[in-house]
Amino acid sequence: MASFVDKLKPAEPSGSNIIARERAQSDISVDALSQTLFAGDDYLQRQARILPILTAEPLFDKKQQANLSRPDLFKLALARAKLLRRLKDQHGWDIDDYKLAELLVDEVSPYYLHLHMFITTIREQASDEQQAYFMPLINAFKIIGAYAQTELGHGSNVQGIELQARWDSRTKEFILHSPTLTACKWWNGSLGRTANYAIVVAQLLLPQPGVNAQDDPDYVSHGPHPFVVQVRDLKTHQPLDGVVIGDIGPKYGYATIDNAYMLFENFRIPHSALLCRYAKVDPNTGIYSKPAIPAVVYGTMTYVRSLIVHQARMGLARAVTIAVRYSSIRRQFKDRDNKHGVERAVLDYPTVQIRVLPLLAATYALHYTGLAMQRIYKDARKEIESGDFGRLAGMHSMSSGLKSFCTNLVADGIETCRRALGGHGYGGASGFTRLYPDYLSRVTVEGDNWMITQQVASYLIKRMGEAAAQSTRADPSHLEMFNALNGGSHLQPCDILNSDVHIVQAFRRRASFLVYGVYMDRIVHKKPWTSLMIQLNKVSHAQSVAMVVEFFQESLSSHEHLSTTTQTSLRNLYRLFAYHQMETEGNDFLRSRAISQDQLSSLPDKIQELMTFIRPHAVKLVDSWMIPDYLLDSALGRYDGQVYEDLFHRAHRLNPLNKITFNPNYWEDELVKDSGEGWSSILAKL
Amino acid sequence: MASFVDKLKPAEPSGSNIIARERAQSDISVDALSQTLFAGDDYLQRQARILPILTAEPLFDKKQQANLSRPDLFKLALARAKLLRRLKDQHGWDIDDYKLAELLVDEVSPYYLHLHMFITTIREQASDEQQAYFMPLINAFKIIGAYAQTELGHGSNVQGIELQARWDSRTKEFILHSPTLTACKWWNGSLGRTANYAIVVAQLLLPQPGVNAQDDPDYVSHGPHPFVVQVRDLKTHQPLDGVVIGDIGPKYGYATIDNAYMLFENFRIPHSALLCRYAKVDPNTGIYSKPAIPAVVYGTMTYVRSLIVHQARMGLARAVTIAVRYSSIRRQFKDRDNKHGVERAVLDYPTVQIRVLPLLAATYALHYTGLAMQRIYKDARKEIESGDFGRLAGMHSMSSGLKSFCTNLVADGIETCRRALGGHGYGGASGFTRLYPDYLSRVTVEGDNWMITQQVASYLIKRMGEAAAQSTRADPSHLEMFNALNGGSHLQPCDILNSDVHIVQAFRRRASFLVYGVYMDRIVHKKPWTSLMIQLNKVSHAQSVAMVVEFFQESLSSHEHLSTTTQTSLRNLYRLFAYHQMETEGNDFLRSRAISQDQLSSLPDKIQELMTFIRPHAVKLVDSWMIPDYLLDSALGRYDGQVYEDLFHRAHRLNPLNKITFNPNYWEDELVKDSGEGWSSILAKL
Repeated sequence: MASFVDKLKPAEPSGSNIIARERAQSDISVDALSQTLFAGDDYLQRQARILPILTAEPLFDKKQQANLSRPDLFKLALARAKLLRRLKDQHGWDIDDYKLAELLVDEVSPYYLHLHMFITTIREQASDEQQAYFMPLINAFKIIGAYAQTELGHGSNVQGIELQARWDSRTKEFILHSPTLTACKWWNGSLGRTANYAIVVAQLLLPQPGVNAQDDPDYVSHGPHPFVVQVRDLKTHQPLDGVVIGDIGPKYGYATIDNAYMLFENFRIPHSALLCRYAKVDPNTGIYSKPAIPAVVYGTMTYVRSLIVHQARMGLARAVTIAVRYSSIRRQFKDRDNKHGVERAVLDYPTVQIRVLPLLAATYALHYTGLAMQRIYKDARKEIESGDFGRLAGMHSMSSGLKSFCTNLVADGIETCRRALGGHGYGGASGFTRLYPDYLSRVTVEGDNWMITQQVASYLIKRMGEAAAQSTRADPSHLEMFNALNGGSHLQPCDILNSDVHIVQAFRRRASFLVYGVYMDRIVHKKPWTSLMIQLNKVSHAQSVAMVVEFFQESLSSHEHLSTTTQTSLRNLYRLFAYHQMETEGNDFLRSRAISQDQLSSLPDKIQELMTFIRPHAVKLVDSWMIPDYLLDSALGRYDGQVYEDLFHRAHRLNPLNKITFNPNYWEDELVKDSGEGWSSILAKL
Repeated sequence: MASFVDKLKPAEPSGSNIIARERAQSDISVDALSQTLFAGDDYLQRQARILPILTAEPLFDKKQQANLSRPDLFKLALARAKLLRRLKDQHGWDIDDYKLAELLVDEVSPYYLHLHMFITTIREQASDEQQAYFMPLINAFKIIGAYAQTELGHGSNVQGIELQARWDSRTKEFILHSPTLTACKWWNGSLGRTANYAIVVAQLLLPQPGVNAQDDPDYVSHGPHPFVVQVRDLKTHQPLDGVVIGDIGPKYGYATIDNAYMLFENFRIPHSALLCRYAKVDPNTGIYSKPAIPAVVYGTMTYVRSLIVHQARMGLARAVTIAVRYSSIRRQFKDRDNKHGVERAVLDYPTVQIRVLPLLAATYALHYTGLAMQRIYKDARKEIESGDFGRLAGMHSMSSGLKSFCTNLVADGIETCRRALGGHGYGGASGFTRLYPDYLSRVTVEGDNWMITQQVASYLIKRMGEAAAQSTRADPSHLEMFNALNGGSHLQPCDILNSDVHIVQAFRRRASFLVYGVYMDRIVHKKPWTSLMIQLNKVSHAQSVAMVVEFFQESLSSHEHLSTTTQTSLRNLYRLFAYHQMETEGNDFLRSRAISQDQLSSLPDKIQELMTFIRPHAVKLVDSWMIPDYLLDSALGRYDGQVYEDLFHRAHRLNPLNKITFNPNYWEDELVKDSGEGWSSILAKL
């Protein structure tokens, strides 16, 4: 029957023909658009250079990875990590090349923390002397480092961690000790099986000055501090005496990284282990000196959050690329008002459009937000390095709010796309089975998305105080709202249907209205902070989405060299994104007099109209993200549209389960036909 | 160091102490409440009887299953399926016992379709003669059956399937043939590796009467029909000649079931293969006779959807049980307004409450909806069996709308709970890693959740027509809305703050308002059906949530024998569920004059107040679902509160990755330390 099977073709029109027609019907130039999107960054050239190197390596083949056990997945990931590091040497890749290669292979590597948190912390917190010692070892991978802060009992509240680093003035050492089970380090990536060094964050316990009785000093904690600690033997790779380490086990996603647990039993480390660029302990007196600028710690977190904001676009763009291509190919049902017609592409149904196209718009919104975030971060860093810390708090607030908003949008958006693809979206060849569980980590790491919105709101409440004081530094939108709500001029609703700038104003006004509310509750009416938390979260969300809309709007003027169709499509995407966000939270926009009830009521029709305009260009608008098939790893999202051929190929030719003939009779122990292999073999694995 | 590790305890207060205190602070009687919830059903006794039988079997141990590859998971599932079937014989279990045992083991078995769709279809569509032949074979598992309808190219639109069953009048056989690749059967559970029989749905092609030239008859299709077909040899378990079958490969969830692909090449089946309880083909003339009552097909789908509605509660109750228990134990941060206090339980934060407690309320709402759906279904079935089909369309609409609403609520709710648990919610010991991906299939199967809302809206538009005609059969809420919007009496907003019944009225009014809108658009203004699809979906949602709220409200009167605290708590849950739904869609409630802007604006405060009332009883309210630890399989959700002990135990003692020492040096091929095992071993598995 092989020849019968091999000759079968999908019913006409085939996916290849459909996708070719989709591309032919739009005069957007994908090349021009993608060059514009990635201008100022040699991302496209880099990808073109690196991709063939990766796809030539059998070890990077993704076909069977969904059939491997977690221990095998980890072995594979370590082998791939080693190979990537060798390719870096071999091809002279810089760090951006290397990181792009990691992204294309699309798994978090066991080396991940070494080149992220470990090296960054050494660079930012270690003294020059410490750096001189460690940096060459790190760059040559002679040691592999991790970052151990979170504990079994404490994550977000870093101040609450329990691991102790107690100064022993007699030996001039610190003693790391876990007093409880909840003090156990937990979640620390790359450390479970791979790293031999770690940044270990512990409560710095020093004898109280003056009460320094040698035998039983009275210790005080100076809060969590970072130490650089060797935890495994470099030869045997066994944990050192006094250290207990292991991998925490399978997780929701991220099978390929070894998140650790780690305990210390009176484990001694030298004075030099304390990273002492800023905080210091005098080895002779045991006296502590504080960092001159406490806000420096702030900076690292801002960096990581702004990086996550920048990366958010790619996760969603992958999902939307798959969703748009497949839903333009998939046919289902004839038009109810024209039963003699042919079946329609599911992307022609408004119920599919309303899920997928606002997310297509969101990929662009996130892209411009990521660029703006990077630009603002770099500018602010320059100021900070020259000693001006004025913008640090605003930067931190912005990065926190956007981290929360963007990663929620992407995490939910990926799943929305998946569900829009019906049954095949649930299948393993969808390209979503790893993307979604892996991405879901983002809503929790580096500050839980709900928790960190308090930091944003806290900053905004202060800023509303400037408006209350009629300060010249006050945000104009805050000032306008404050004055309007305190008997000033009556606010006219923004004309969101006819002005791009009014749309931005409406978002700002809604945000200011909510900020005013929490300002009054907290500052004027002195309500408990905890009782306001739900509102604080709303405030942060409103502020962040206003920024995203504004960055998107600002980008529109940078497209003037593109064709009219392209420019119009981008403007339509802008409006679709904004209207869709507005409609979901309509009541808030009404209450803040940002828009009129009439314009709000007209939004569903406007949204549907915009989707009709965007629909013919949807495939080219996702093509412009230039995501290679190798990264998508999706039968549904293939560039060439051969969806059904690939789904069948993967099932019929690649699925290892089909090599096994089972015995289905329940009265027989045998599992695999004619093998005699009974239950005992599988029972032994439990 | 073993003794050091073994002696460590979590920081005080321990989880066990906390959860004991949580239970002590509420005077709800868990026994009384759960007996009330499960009254009229011996669910609790059944569970108590079956659970010890399962936990005594090593094969049902869940500890290592997350570390198995998909082929091993499937072997395990087959072994478990065999054992379950033997236990049924051994203990004389009835079908409900057997299905509860399957539920507790918590995986879809390779036999799943045999006892669901296969047996049901034989029972409902086979003639008495066919049943007499097949039923004994089915019950003894002498044959294993599956159900093959969906194809690679067609799911929701069953009319569009491509597989052909062509009548050969010379041999009096049907010829099954797949003309294209998209005609390939796809997704058919239990068929990929297990079943040897299947219900195969194919286009029934018969020669056109009169034009019955023997050599080249002109065939017409009579639409999809079910055939019972042997597809594998009963001895060798190989596919028969002319049949190509296999498993479609790894999926998003459901690793333990073998969803199939299947192709036929001119495969001949006897005349007796056509299930002929209703539709028949005369073997001598080839003449087709239609089912007398076409609506019977309808009935099966209604049954399956109402079953899904009934089961929805359990998926969410598992998630909420874990979330409430863990978030009452987990401490994080001190109160910002009382920095000298102790760290607070995260369930004390409104930002955690607003995610978890409305879902706790939803478990109760879903429970009463499931009971009502079952009751209404049984009553309607009786009428239908006595030849009265009057309620069939309403039943079908109700089951479709509720299937869509309830499974969306549960799927999203599970993930909301998981995210509310911070880092540990992402860990493998959370109890969510299988629950969520498995449950996600429900939003697509048995009618995609967006697609089927058209069927609901279509029914409601007809019903609004009755109001327009001022028919006595019209829904009173439709009638009230129709008359109000056509110059009748002015509608006073419902008083949702002071009356439980007014809350129901508000939901009905909102639904009727939206139904009126699509009625006008479709019937009066003749707008294209497709252009209205987003509105149709909203209509179905509004109608379904109104039903859920009404069922919940009706249940309140059945609690009078319970303590005042219990009754008050259930009423608070009712209001929390209703207000939370209302607040999310506030603008629709305003526009339909269901509630006033004042009352809408007060909802956030009311919601927060209700959550404060419910908070002390939350643990007992989840305890009442009586979900055993074995089913939860969650360190976070354990009944005894030993969260940290269990998390550590699973990582430190059960994780197989910790038995392997890796070689982290990238310049060395070796993966496992001192084994010499290089890349080649893992490369061979790709």
